[in-house]
Amino acid sequence: MHEFKLIKNYFQKLSKKSSGSLKLNDDVFFDKKKNLVVSTDTYTEGNHFINFKKPDLVIKKIIRSSISDLICKGVVPKYYFISGSGNKKNFSKFNLSKISKSLNVEQNKYKIFLSGGDTVFSNKLSFTITSIGFAKNIVYRNKAKINDDIYVSGNLGDSFLGLLILKNRIKLNSLLNKYFIKHYFMPNIQLKLAHQLDKFANTSIDISDGLLADLDKMINCQKLSYKIDLKNIPISNNLKKVLNLKKLSKINYISNGDDYQVLFTASNDKKRIIKKISSNFRIKVTKIGIIQSINKKSSIVDHNNIQITLKNKGYFHQF
Amino acid sequence: MHEFKLIKNYFQKLSKKSSGSLKLNDDVFFDKKKNLVVSTDTYTEGNHFINFKKPDLVIKKIIRSSISDLICKGVVPKYYFISGSGNKKNFSKFNLSKISKSLNVEQNKYKIFLSGGDTVFSNKLSFTITSIGFAKNIVYRNKAKINDDIYVSGNLGDSFLGLLILKNRIKLNSLLNKYFIKHYFMPNIQLKLAHQLDKFANTSIDISDGLLADLDKMINCQKLSYKIDLKNIPISNNLKKVLNLKKLSKINYISNGDDYQVLFTASNDKKRIIKKISSNFRIKVTKIGIIQSINKKSSIVDHNNIQITLKNKGYFHQF
Repeated sequence: MHEFKLIKNYFQKLSKKSSGSLKLNDDVFFDKKKNLVVSTDTYTEGNHFINFKKPDLVIKKIIRSSISDLICKGVVPKYYFISGSGNKKNFSKFNLSKISKSLNVEQNKYKIFLSGGDTVFSNKLSFTITSIGFAKNIVYRNKAKINDDIYVSGNLGDSFLGLLILKNRIKLNSLLNKYFIKHYFMPNIQLKLAHQLDKFANTSIDISDGLLADLDKMINCQKLSYKIDLKNIPISNNLKKVLNLKKLSKINYISNGDDYQVLFTASNDKKRIIKKISSNFRIKVTKIGIIQSINKKSSIVDHNNIQITLKNKGYFHQF
Repeated sequence: MHEFKLIKNYFQKLSKKSSGSLKLNDDVFFDKKKNLVVSTDTYTEGNHFINFKKPDLVIKKIIRSSISDLICKGVVPKYYFISGSGNKKNFSKFNLSKISKSLNVEQNKYKIFLSGGDTVFSNKLSFTITSIGFAKNIVYRNKAKINDDIYVSGNLGDSFLGLLILKNRIKLNSLLNKYFIKHYFMPNIQLKLAHQLDKFANTSIDISDGLLADLDKMINCQKLSYKIDLKNIPISNNLKKVLNLKKLSKINYISNGDDYQVLFTASNDKKRIIKKISSNFRIKVTKIGIIQSINKKSSIVDHNNIQITLKNKGYFHQF
């Protein structure tokens, strides 16, 4: 069963008394009265991370993934809770020491702190992270307006290339290997954008499942569609280099998820303020397309304005 | 590695910047400035519940276990987040429908509501529940005073007998079977006590791992000990009946955990108010012992005031 259907059929009704749960159709829970914002996510070995050979890096990745859900709503994360299920090998002294050090680095980098958690014996390794922040307002999903510009922060695709390298599906030189693997484990999340987002964004989401999958999710209750210019989707110089070198198509490397960049829309008259904030705070923000009427089909077009068909839009959680 | 040691060695230092995390040595996280109280726990198949043959009952048990952590601190739970990891069979339509119905029943019973969560594919079934409430103050661990009376709410041991029945380790008639299994899956947690606890309790904990294990935890940073009267430990008439019938010793059936009753201490001059509140709100509360100086050893005594030695104090999480 598709995760959306599962939530809709079995759990949405349980949240109806609470406007803050946003019908379980947003990245976070928001208690407007208490100004409280909560995100909770589970990460399992073999699914959200390949294995636990590099516990220090896996921990960094999942912490960033968790706080990314708050950041993309314009909320500054304040503290986090981590519950780990695993066996003795997963939680050996060596690994615990690495986990602890990584958490410490991330805490200092993002000004968050550990506030609780749980450790449970299990033969299957998984972590659940709950991140909490406070805000008077958040940027919701499903608030895009027709003719809005669509923006994305940072670069896309580096993380996916890192995954391909780790899975031995692509071979590069050691410098490039290092670069992409680093971006896979340590996505360059945009904490600074959290402070600014509500000044211009109408709607937002973070890109965890893939650009197009998350675009669909961002407006899934709205009668709207999108048009994306492939050439405008920002990628790193290193990714450009690899695409040229290996003669790979950009389209297959920009919507595979794990980017943890902020995807948002803003009305056209916000163009200047976005440019100003982007430049003042050194946050890379790129316009990649527009929101359009449902009469037009959602599409992604190449440099000749010809629509590209895509087999795989991104990652969908299935049961 | 013992769970306490694991927290102390690797995680306590990460929480030092936050007074609210209570050095990860309490049942909850408490942000005093925001009046926010958070508890998070992971429940795995084969560990916290035997199997998932009765999803409706397992869900009730883990929801109650989670909110019990708030209740025992004198905090009324407000909403919860549930993250489930499991396979297609665990989350079949049949099971999802049962899970959803159970959550609905518990929501109505305890006036809480689902606010978010996550579902993840995994071959190992586990749930992480985060419960949140709001309070100006909480009842902490490690605040017992010398000569405090020790109290417990409800009855102990019914849940453990239910577990023995489910494991085929004891055979009873069908009426008794039903009674104990019900108490195993649906512990009689004391929501009403949450509203009253801070009027009299100096320190508190909920009994999840076993009376004596949790007594130790409640005062683990204090130079104090306890003395418990076995005869005063409250048990149900049904448990009395079984102990008589099968010639079993009470001591082996009152400290095995899963009771989710509130264990607390109060100074002797609070005796009257405790009695009054207990009677007005129909909450069973029983004095079972006293807090004493560390010069005396912690002990549990029989009706002749003779100390009983116990092999197994309760459940300890090990790695």
